[in-house]
Amino acid sequence: MGERNAIVLLSGGLDSATALAIARSQGFVCRTLAVSYGQRHAVELQAARTLSRQLGAVEHRQMHVDLADIGGSALTDSRIAVPESATAGIPVTYVPARNTLFLALALGWAEVTGSHDIFIGVNAVDYSGYPDCRPDFISAFETLAGLATRAGVEGGRLHIQAPLLRMSKAGIIRTGVELGVDYGQTVSCYQANDQLEACGRCDSCRLRREGFATAGLPDPTRYA
Amino acid sequence: MGERNAIVLLSGGLDSATALAIARSQGFVCRTLAVSYGQRHAVELQAARTLSRQLGAVEHRQMHVDLADIGGSALTDSRIAVPESATAGIPVTYVPARNTLFLALALGWAEVTGSHDIFIGVNAVDYSGYPDCRPDFISAFETLAGLATRAGVEGGRLHIQAPLLRMSKAGIIRTGVELGVDYGQTVSCYQANDQLEACGRCDSCRLRREGFATAGLPDPTRYA
Repeated sequence: MGERNAIVLLSGGLDSATALAIARSQGFVCRTLAVSYGQRHAVELQAARTLSRQLGAVEHRQMHVDLADIGGSALTDSRIAVPESATAGIPVTYVPARNTLFLALALGWAEVTGSHDIFIGVNAVDYSGYPDCRPDFISAFETLAGLATRAGVEGGRLHIQAPLLRMSKAGIIRTGVELGVDYGQTVSCYQANDQLEACGRCDSCRLRREGFATAGLPDPTRYA
Repeated sequence: MGERNAIVLLSGGLDSATALAIARSQGFVCRTLAVSYGQRHAVELQAARTLSRQLGAVEHRQMHVDLADIGGSALTDSRIAVPESATAGIPVTYVPARNTLFLALALGWAEVTGSHDIFIGVNAVDYSGYPDCRPDFISAFETLAGLATRAGVEGGRLHIQAPLLRMSKAGIIRTGVELGVDYGQTVSCYQANDQLEACGRCDSCRLRREGFATAGLPDPTRYA
């Protein structure tokens, strides 16, 4: 059996770093893709580069698409504040169509590199309620991917792998620690500063902090 | 009944200009989206701007994403020549995952602008055999769109409108002429020059030329 190539979407956060570690542990030759989309926490892009190397990807790429042009999210529009307590419904940190776009970019690169697997670190348990993190979304994209590409026409297959989909945040952290992920290098905070220091108050910080506490593991996050 | 907003993907070519004219004739308030993706025929982006205004869109946006980073296509990699005669299978001008990406960008903008319809000028009759122009692809994207967004969660709907899907090139041209499309402003050629002059030899030129001939209408294309 030859090499199995995979594209791994790597944001620089805790979840996608764990997804990369899982893909590597399953023997995939991994290429990592980070997307610069006008996010306020652009420091995560540095983290992605570091994590890609630490976790043994063969190549890292950063693509740019300016979702700030579209707006509609606290993550891409500096006039909308990041909430520092829980909110009802889909939070304002939701970025319209972000995962659809990321998967589309990964799909193009998968096709060119002969990769039949795309890993994405979405999670539908300890998550912020984003519509494009749900299991139905992932399977709909897999169906689409099978039709969208050369492989689809020529009888190939394409799997969207979301290994964290049904895991708790604590479970994700335990798995990652076992696989050697250095969570001190990951950035979860929506408003992290240039020194990779977290605010400790946004939704993403809250989920991360609770995850380490529940897992009973030391939290390496540096708070500002 | 209130305003019906639509996003129209507008490349600057013959098909998407016709799709815009159709959307307008159906009473949609249209926002047009062109994507600069590193295409060799970037002159089509100028054409898109002109056509958007001529055909009465309320807003035009150009987004950038560099698919040249991904490569794998004659349209984004200058080292791969554009074929000047018919080829078997999926041609090298196919850009991996291009329509998935374009629709993802349109989806984000649709969500922010309260648009429940996205128009795309794909055609599965007189076309180049690209996988992401097929009816199954369009319906799979519509399913995905219903799951990917806030509207999907909150019970809204999103339609992917592909009015040209089953039309012949001649039929598209006849429809557009009736609706007042100025085809002299559209660029179909994959290697058009800065003066919007076409090569007359690539697949896209060939389909366009045959379309005008079959429709029995004068071809306003200027050839280099």
